[in-house]
Amino acid sequence: MAEFAFRIHATDGDARAGEIRMARGSVRTPAFMPVGTAATVKGMKPGDVRAAGADIILGNTYHLMLRPGAERMARLGGLHRFMNWPLPILTDSGGYQVMSLGALVKMKEEGVSFQSHIDGTRHFVSPERSIEIQRLLGSDIVMAFDECTPYPATRERAESSMRLSMRWARRSREKFLKSDQGALFGIQQGSMFESLRQESAEKLQEIGFEGYAIGGLAVGEGQQAMFEVLDFAPAMLPADRPRYLMGVGKPSDIIGAVLRGVDMFDCVLPTRSGRTAQAFTLDGTLNLRNARHAEDPEPLDADCSCPVCASYSRAYLHHLFKAGEMLGAMLLTEHNLWHYQILMKELRDSIAAGTVAGFAKYRLGRMAAPPG
Amino acid sequence: MAEFAFRIHATDGDARAGEIRMARGSVRTPAFMPVGTAATVKGMKPGDVRAAGADIILGNTYHLMLRPGAERMARLGGLHRFMNWPLPILTDSGGYQVMSLGALVKMKEEGVSFQSHIDGTRHFVSPERSIEIQRLLGSDIVMAFDECTPYPATRERAESSMRLSMRWARRSREKFLKSDQGALFGIQQGSMFESLRQESAEKLQEIGFEGYAIGGLAVGEGQQAMFEVLDFAPAMLPADRPRYLMGVGKPSDIIGAVLRGVDMFDCVLPTRSGRTAQAFTLDGTLNLRNARHAEDPEPLDADCSCPVCASYSRAYLHHLFKAGEMLGAMLLTEHNLWHYQILMKELRDSIAAGTVAGFAKYRLGRMAAPPG
Repeated sequence: MAEFAFRIHATDGDARAGEIRMARGSVRTPAFMPVGTAATVKGMKPGDVRAAGADIILGNTYHLMLRPGAERMARLGGLHRFMNWPLPILTDSGGYQVMSLGALVKMKEEGVSFQSHIDGTRHFVSPERSIEIQRLLGSDIVMAFDECTPYPATRERAESSMRLSMRWARRSREKFLKSDQGALFGIQQGSMFESLRQESAEKLQEIGFEGYAIGGLAVGEGQQAMFEVLDFAPAMLPADRPRYLMGVGKPSDIIGAVLRGVDMFDCVLPTRSGRTAQAFTLDGTLNLRNARHAEDPEPLDADCSCPVCASYSRAYLHHLFKAGEMLGAMLLTEHNLWHYQILMKELRDSIAAGTVAGFAKYRLGRMAAPPG
Repeated sequence: MAEFAFRIHATDGDARAGEIRMARGSVRTPAFMPVGTAATVKGMKPGDVRAAGADIILGNTYHLMLRPGAERMARLGGLHRFMNWPLPILTDSGGYQVMSLGALVKMKEEGVSFQSHIDGTRHFVSPERSIEIQRLLGSDIVMAFDECTPYPATRERAESSMRLSMRWARRSREKFLKSDQGALFGIQQGSMFESLRQESAEKLQEIGFEGYAIGGLAVGEGQQAMFEVLDFAPAMLPADRPRYLMGVGKPSDIIGAVLRGVDMFDCVLPTRSGRTAQAFTLDGTLNLRNARHAEDPEPLDADCSCPVCASYSRAYLHHLFKAGEMLGAMLLTEHNLWHYQILMKELRDSIAAGTVAGFAKYRLGRMAAPPG
């Protein structure tokens, strides 16, 4: 296995600040991973993603296996070279999107067959094939193939789904160990049930992984229910390995999860919001299509240190969205990614300083206040 | 009037290499001006437009007067601040696009009334209002208001259209002289008729302008007919003032026009082509949607020094267009702008070296050869 080392530099309550070292570079934790679904963080050049502060991005196995295809990607030298991102990449297993985007999905013990949403071709993904695809892509952090248990689920459904995922986690590990690739993360399931989360965590640790994800959250349960699970789930996972909360989230979700011991996050929110004219600011979100911005010379966020806030007014961004200009989505995505990365830096710094609770209170209070 | 000085550093046959000095910066000529229609060079951040080599961009008065509006732009500090482009901007007069994009266009001696293509509101533009709008935008090079004579035109129609434009040129100049703004260029009309081009050139010089444009070309007449006009039109204009061929063109158009004594160009071709998957290369154009690029690891142009060719394969660009990703248009636009600016630099350098005829022969020969 390639180099993979996780070191915790500081703790503050349950929050941890540290670093993951990998062959392609280090990831400062708590870390936010911008999503680069189809081999591009939408609307951003890789150099600008890096400049925003990202140490690692996420690629979606489902999209990439369909287009351009895993074997083609390997012939072209892998995902890093293809998209000109030389730093670490985490790939998901494809399982979640097979089930949410694929058509005619059929799940069996062996794996999942489905029809492509792009061209209708039939495909089959098993734990072994998912690991193989992620190897062909050249992933630095490979995710075990699992079923993201739908929400809500009965205890019976959550249990059988979790146990299937644990059998798939073992098969993922066995396949992974046969080839030289990055690190493999197991994924805890168990829906909202503490005893199932516990069983899942134990089974994963019997198998052994370089890191552990918390799956099956951010699926519609709401922040309060998610935090209730995060009150117990992270502590079930090894303290000396990174903990990754998949698909999360809003800034307030991330703050709450960091306070509960989570180290890694990914979410489409900053990039997707950028394309739909939503800007994150310290005081909450702005809709740049709103006519009240038409003659506002102020930046998106007077307290933001990003290049967009340094050079452009709300009036200009409003104009770009009204005129249907690509640059609107480009600039708002850039600002939003900076906003997220600045939040992660401030979380890391306040953990190191032992002030994370106060920082969280300030940030959450400010974003909840009515706009001034 | 603000600072405006044109100096010719070298000539080679009829071709000239020089520099226009203005308060906001210098423009090396022959110059290509990327088009920033709606206060953005589509798909490009201003810093990247500059990095490609552009000294000046063009803004479209018609689009900007309708959205965000000239008075609003002035209240926001002008076009340069609005779009974060601190270097010179040339604005057209709006006349051409009023007549091509507006609805219910009514032209009279006084000016042109029309309905906005955006929201149906009625507007009126006269020479005086066009100059006023360009002042409100903060233009460095203001264009006289004219009628771009449609092609083909009878001699009678071309004559009356040209004479109207000359009366409007005088009114433009009178309005311009009443306020402190950049430079004003007059526009030669006369369609394909040498005697009308001569009359137009003389009338413009009686009025007197900082520079002279050749209008009414690149309107469907084809390269051969355009070159036939350029065999006589530039020499009718003062040798010591910049000559600007409006709306031109393909690389071969630009090369032919530079050889005939033209100094400035603008065209949507590199940017629009970038959005429609067309790439300019030394060996002609490529359509990146073509399946033959799907697994091609080569850059767009092995001889190109742009950042896109340094880092991305044809296979990746093909993938981005197939997947509908914005980054495809962004990167191809960037490459195309570099391609144009590199051509302009090579034209300037070969004029200085006295080798422009040989350079033109090489470049035209290479782009005409069948792809290797």
